[in-house]
Amino acid sequence: MSKVKCDMAMSLDGYVTGLNQSLEEPFGEGVGQRLHRWMFEEAERHSEVLDDITAAGAFIMGRNMFGPGRGAWDLEWTGWWGEEPPYHAPVFVLTHHAREPLEMKGGTTFGFVTEGIEAALAQAREAAGDRDVAIAGGAATVNQYVAAGLIDELRLHIAPVILGRGERLFDGVGEIELRPVGDPWGTDLVTHVTYQVVR
Amino acid sequence: MSKVKCDMAMSLDGYVTGLNQSLEEPFGEGVGQRLHRWMFEEAERHSEVLDDITAAGAFIMGRNMFGPGRGAWDLEWTGWWGEEPPYHAPVFVLTHHAREPLEMKGGTTFGFVTEGIEAALAQAREAAGDRDVAIAGGAATVNQYVAAGLIDELRLHIAPVILGRGERLFDGVGEIELRPVGDPWGTDLVTHVTYQVVR
Repeated sequence: MSKVKCDMAMSLDGYVTGLNQSLEEPFGEGVGQRLHRWMFEEAERHSEVLDDITAAGAFIMGRNMFGPGRGAWDLEWTGWWGEEPPYHAPVFVLTHHAREPLEMKGGTTFGFVTEGIEAALAQAREAAGDRDVAIAGGAATVNQYVAAGLIDELRLHIAPVILGRGERLFDGVGEIELRPVGDPWGTDLVTHVTYQVVR
Repeated sequence: MSKVKCDMAMSLDGYVTGLNQSLEEPFGEGVGQRLHRWMFEEAERHSEVLDDITAAGAFIMGRNMFGPGRGAWDLEWTGWWGEEPPYHAPVFVLTHHAREPLEMKGGTTFGFVTEGIEAALAQAREAAGDRDVAIAGGAATVNQYVAAGLIDELRLHIAPVILGRGERLFDGVGEIELRPVGDPWGTDLVTHVTYQVVR
């Protein structure tokens, strides 16, 4: 059965990005790889987690995650990831500004959805078939899906750092009960904990 | 070697109490036992954790944790815990208002420290001898000790709930790096993760 899942790297104080994201600092001022060191420095030990993140049949992301622009599209912008993005699957970008689909190398196609989160999820489910749908981020998008009760599995990768500022997971989602799934585990650089949202 | 440790039950979004704590709702409006269900419903499974919390040789707490009063002391107030508090050891209460020590049944003595967190820690260390010192709470007190780099082991007991409001652990402590200690583990009601603060 296909699931809607969401993997988020976050600080121990709940931030998934810092402040003032920019081209030079996509995770915000001074954050660099602090939330993602485990991915780079210990990729082998976390290979199952990493493989699973990229194994989804379709992805959904907010416009903020697709690029730094706002308002009307700069059609030169094709995402942060170069010619061959790491998704290798359809990616649905939530936006208020319509845009033609953008076919990249390696099987990634960016589609632009102006009808909201439920429409994007319906399109992603159809595109994914019997594979999972991944809510890729950022915080505002994930929080909308959490608040709407649309995520089956929330997989947190908690880095042992306190950022103190930025965009917070769970901001404004209201009171929610979750249930841990499986056993938490980790290394010096990350603790993995998976939750099911109790509806 | 004696350690300074701190056990905190917190929500997944980082709150250790809700808003508007009162005599009737010491953990804040609507919070009840939501952060502590594991202690009550699964005490047996967490007995080592619980035994270790109470095994400290001395405790430190903020005035807010000792009672709901502010300003000059109401000398009738002897804490939330009745005649025999569960500490069975010296407890140092941080306050701006001097008060004579208060000897309770079962070995708990409340001492009142007006000289700040370092003085309280020195007194607690001396009282504890070669046993550990526990920073018992609440959030404001723990955050002061974390910010000052005075906690050796921070033991988080993360309940799978989102509270959305209240007093937050790590608020205002600045940027901090930690290191997970041992393996995280948990049940449906809690995830235990221990951190060492990297200095």
